[in-house]
Amino acid sequence: MASVGIVGGTGYTGVELLRILATHPDVELRAITSRGEGGTPVADLFPSLRGRVNLAFADPSKAELARCDIVFFATPNGVAMQQAKPLVDAGVRVIDLAADFRLADADEWERWYRMPHACPELLGEAVYGLPEVNREAIRNARIIANPGCYPTAVQLGFLPLIEAGIVDTEGLIADAKSGVSGAGRKAETHILFSEAGDNFKAYGVAGHRHLPEIRQGLARAAGRSVGLTFVPHLTPMIRGIHATLYSRINADADIQSLFESRYADEPFVDVLPPGSHPETRSVRGSNTCRIAIHRPGGGSTVVVLSVIDNLVKGAAGQAVQNMNLLLGLPETRGLEQIALLP
Amino acid sequence: MASVGIVGGTGYTGVELLRILATHPDVELRAITSRGEGGTPVADLFPSLRGRVNLAFADPSKAELARCDIVFFATPNGVAMQQAKPLVDAGVRVIDLAADFRLADADEWERWYRMPHACPELLGEAVYGLPEVNREAIRNARIIANPGCYPTAVQLGFLPLIEAGIVDTEGLIADAKSGVSGAGRKAETHILFSEAGDNFKAYGVAGHRHLPEIRQGLARAAGRSVGLTFVPHLTPMIRGIHATLYSRINADADIQSLFESRYADEPFVDVLPPGSHPETRSVRGSNTCRIAIHRPGGGSTVVVLSVIDNLVKGAAGQAVQNMNLLLGLPETRGLEQIALLP
Amino acid sequence: MASVGIVGGTGYTGVELLRILATHPDVELRAITSRGEGGTPVADLFPSLRGRVNLAFADPSKAELARCDIVFFATPNGVAMQQAKPLVDAGVRVIDLAADFRLADADEWERWYRMPHACPELLGEAVYGLPEVNREAIRNARIIANPGCYPTAVQLGFLPLIEAGIVDTEGLIADAKSGVSGAGRKAETHILFSEAGDNFKAYGVAGHRHLPEIRQGLARAAGRSVGLTFVPHLTPMIRGIHATLYSRINADADIQSLFESRYADEPFVDVLPPGSHPETRSVRGSNTCRIAIHRPGGGSTVVVLSVIDNLVKGAAGQAVQNMNLLLGLPETRGLEQIALLP
Amino acid sequence: MASVGIVGGTGYTGVELLRILATHPDVELRAITSRGEGGTPVADLFPSLRGRVNLAFADPSKAELARCDIVFFATPNGVAMQQAKPLVDAGVRVIDLAADFRLADADEWERWYRMPHACPELLGEAVYGLPEVNREAIRNARIIANPGCYPTAVQLGFLPLIEAGIVDTEGLIADAKSGVSGAGRKAETHILFSEAGDNFKAYGVAGHRHLPEIRQGLARAAGRSVGLTFVPHLTPMIRGIHATLYSRINADADIQSLFESRYADEPFVDVLPPGSHPETRSVRGSNTCRIAIHRPGGGSTVVVLSVIDNLVKGAAGQAVQNMNLLLGLPETRGLEQIALLP
Repeated sequence: MASVGIVGGTGYTGVELLRILATHPDVELRAITSRGEGGTPVADLFPSLRGRVNLAFADPSKAELARCDIVFFATPNGVAMQQAKPLVDAGVRVIDLAADFRLADADEWERWYRMPHACPELLGEAVYGLPEVNREAIRNARIIANPGCYPTAVQLGFLPLIEAGIVDTEGLIADAKSGVSGAGRKAETHILFSEAGDNFKAYGVAGHRHLPEIRQGLARAAGRSVGLTFVPHLTPMIRGIHATLYSRINADADIQSLFESRYADEPFVDVLPPGSHPETRSVRGSNTCRIAIHRPGGGSTVVVLSVIDNLVKGAAGQAVQNMNLLLGLPETRGLEQIALLP
Repeated sequence: MASVGIVGGTGYTGVELLRILATHPDVELRAITSRGEGGTPVADLFPSLRGRVNLAFADPSKAELARCDIVFFATPNGVAMQQAKPLVDAGVRVIDLAADFRLADADEWERWYRMPHACPELLGEAVYGLPEVNREAIRNARIIANPGCYPTAVQLGFLPLIEAGIVDTEGLIADAKSGVSGAGRKAETHILFSEAGDNFKAYGVAGHRHLPEIRQGLARAAGRSVGLTFVPHLTPMIRGIHATLYSRINADADIQSLFESRYADEPFVDVLPPGSHPETRSVRGSNTCRIAIHRPGGGSTVVVLSVIDNLVKGAAGQAVQNMNLLLGLPETRGLEQIALLP
Repeated sequence: MASVGIVGGTGYTGVELLRILATHPDVELRAITSRGEGGTPVADLFPSLRGRVNLAFADPSKAELARCDIVFFATPNGVAMQQAKPLVDAGVRVIDLAADFRLADADEWERWYRMPHACPELLGEAVYGLPEVNREAIRNARIIANPGCYPTAVQLGFLPLIEAGIVDTEGLIADAKSGVSGAGRKAETHILFSEAGDNFKAYGVAGHRHLPEIRQGLARAAGRSVGLTFVPHLTPMIRGIHATLYSRINADADIQSLFESRYADEPFVDVLPPGSHPETRSVRGSNTCRIAIHRPGGGSTVVVLSVIDNLVKGAAGQAVQNMNLLLGLPETRGLEQIALLP
Repeated sequence: MASVGIVGGTGYTGVELLRILATHPDVELRAITSRGEGGTPVADLFPSLRGRVNLAFADPSKAELARCDIVFFATPNGVAMQQAKPLVDAGVRVIDLAADFRLADADEWERWYRMPHACPELLGEAVYGLPEVNREAIRNARIIANPGCYPTAVQLGFLPLIEAGIVDTEGLIADAKSGVSGAGRKAETHILFSEAGDNFKAYGVAGHRHLPEIRQGLARAAGRSVGLTFVPHLTPMIRGIHATLYSRINADADIQSLFESRYADEPFVDVLPPGSHPETRSVRGSNTCRIAIHRPGGGSTVVVLSVIDNLVKGAAGQAVQNMNLLLGLPETRGLEQIALLP
């Protein structure tokens, strides 16, 4: 039974971690911290957890996180990089669900996140926690950068094509749509029900922080830099990401088979039959990524459709998948939830 | 390992039964039938079940339901009463999620459901499957009438008051609000997204089929007939029922304590602290009923707020709870899912 | 051409006033103020008004409101009472869309709104702006208290019964459901899309500020104090209020005719045929209140269903209706919008 | 005062035509037909029109459509082509909101719509009713093919680039998202609230009927055939289309100025300032198309964001705009509605 701590558990990734960990058979939740809610029982803030999580939020200064086997940071960007080092030094294995350790290049990180990086010395060893790419490195990591939600959906959709070297990597397009929970549990006007409901819009077209993260991942697969246009959109649903990916194929290939064999052994990537259109609700609450591939009119444009639940495979579920790898557990342990449909 | 069959699995209660049973450790799903979808893999219709349910829908005439230990009817009203008898005679224990066996009085049933009852001889022994009232009878039943969604939420909210004899049972009011999935997976115009979305309305004020079912249950608790005004409403969400219940108190009582002790041993009824307002999402996907009690201004009107997920505690989850009782399993087995929030 | 000013135009009642006034043929919008957005073009904040409203928000200290014929306060509670007096003294006619002048009793106001009343001397002459009750007084008022959204829907539904003296006024129940825009355009967590979406809950059961306002209005109609239980609920839609009203009838009456004749000459109250269930979307964006009356099972309980758009008949539209009365214009001028359906 | 008839008024384009025409100052609605609803008052089906539209649906065989000045077909595909000829011969000017006269090539039409074209002889003279392209031809047309919703949003977004000859027309990509009302008011399972709500998916990736229509329009502008990948998506909102358009620029140009000057005189196309992200709700209920242009990272990919209300500029509003042109009225007459926000 591994002991687990969560730093910053009042956001959506925090409550989702709690939902998953509370029924995980091999972990014991030892501490969860919150600066603002110290002393409040977790179930007071999230009544869905009444009777299932009996912890109270602890003041960060008092939580004995260094005694945990695993500590998750479900904090805003910029927190983990300040607090992870002593934990890692104490032998705790850290999984950061924010962006602090996702970009290998500290300068690029600072440009996109507009703050100095507090812990560049850990960037080198931090492992990007996409198991479908880095499974072995994850098993032995001391610190894991859990991928962003958009980057998970986009990379899983593009990787087979790029790894096979059959698409033009200069003109990749990722048109992505996210449910509103992707914006977090923050008191901001633009994500109010009356603003985001019955409404659709793009945002961040000039440049979104997930762009360099996706580019980095695709470049690693391609072995060279890639050209990517990434347009995120806000869609009036709570959970879910749908990435619609466009690329030009430049070689003959059975793309359907390519995807099927690439993901044949992946427990959380489901390649749909030809002609399919995955729905975000088919993964609501589950750790699965479902993918379909099209080649409209038999032309040179390949369209990949990739869906995940942004809070599960795009955040907390993938973090638990990484934890399972760290702990030597079966990768699917505690992640067997079936999507809630309808 | 008990073997289980489902008759009519293409509706929402069917897919929800599948979601729950697919991870239930003590049952094996042997057959699921559909008149319209015979031969279609279940996961083709419900991609959320891909990789988790490998059955195909079977033609009803060919499914060997009589060999199952338990058969669920997730069919429209009027089907189970035609097919249950031979199964019961063959020793199968039947749980009907429709209304066929909910009313003890065949004449009343025929008035509300506008068809002759095909199997009145089983009405006498059918047990109304509300475990919080009928737990012992359920254990030994051959046929169980799984309660309706509104009746579950309303009865659990009113029962402590009525059993204690402290409210005027002539003027009960149940103002209930349901998510749209309560109307089923039927191709009807009024439940289209563009009709039911961003919209709120009452319906069936002149008389809804759940009215006699609720009245019967409350009358049994009261020991006499009761006067109930029941107004259902359609609310633009997918899952969830919120019942707001009004009654006049006619005796001194600590109502909060009354509810807490009435439900102290109930695994699926959660009485919230004084001053609470339960949210439907706090039970989304879980088998829990959460209840709060108010007495505004300290007056004689008691307001009870009761929420359930109409597809879980209001349908498939309660059916599995009943199945657990029938099979002598722990009542919570396979029903540990935590609500999906947000 | 009357000149009009708006104080505080950055909330939902403000933008709705702008939508209506921008196409009103008899008024000229002279100024709109905002403390936080001084200098910002209105259409930058609300792109729906691009090309239709060319004003910029003005700093409150600089706006020449005293030169307007009419000034609307679309401000939070507590602002109009501080600023209305000099305007009224200067001959401006003031319509407050907040609660400052709604309760005749300053003590009761202070208990519910938890601040001292800054201008009790105007309370006596302020006219409660429900035209269906106070039409003549409104025409000559210097200051109008525009009714709350819930109070509009609830009073219009109860008034014919109470005026006719045929219901027990001790046990009135108003179970009301509001769209989320009723909570305003405030950066608060509980009204985020991911919190309020796909969710239903009651709130303020212990006591909501609209309770004394409704009680006051019903008491005036009854000629004595009334007993009212008022339970508001938050429903996942943007606009709309649905009030479900319960009362016990104590005399013989043709209730349908009673309502029809009470509202026969009202341009904005539509009594539906017997057996109807009004939908909130049938009034979305329009100034209409639609009402249906039921007497389930022919019993003594009368159920009234009353729907409005909380931002129109429940706020900005009713304010313009009051303005038309003040200006001697036809009451429907500028309020002919047909509801947006679907 | 022109007299107007509507064939097939029970769908969403029909009720939207009624909403707009009921307040149009220069037309009199003479007849509206429905095969299924003959005799039913329009306001019984659509309570939003109570007191505003007093017509009943007429049996198609009895309606004196030939006496109208204008007849709109708000029917399914395949109806107008069977009934338009005698009306046109009688001097009625016909506006078809369906697809029957949108494609100039009858063979292509038959391939995509899978039925023989009943009236190819009118295809030659039918004018494609996109006023921003065909204004003069529309004025003198006898029969107008009102554009589809996706085609309106996509063409208005691409046209300035293509007309200027500055983009590669071989690799155009249109990633489009529609509200559910675009699927019509049909009793079909996949557009139920519980299916389409809280869900996002692509559909028709292999080929959607709007693809040839868009290709035809863009090819006319380009003077040669174009290569277009068109991926439509269903998004959980009622109204609105958001088209995200990708193209490669192959010449130097100030794209913002290009769009601004192209649409400078267009009353219903609003080019937003640089850096903007139009929201669908900013045009909800209005006849406006709002467009923003981006060039992420200063690269060669141009991203155009284009939003319309699919039922207004994408259907009924554009039809009325065409009617105004036919009647020699100001183009904006009766179309001054401001978007409903929130």
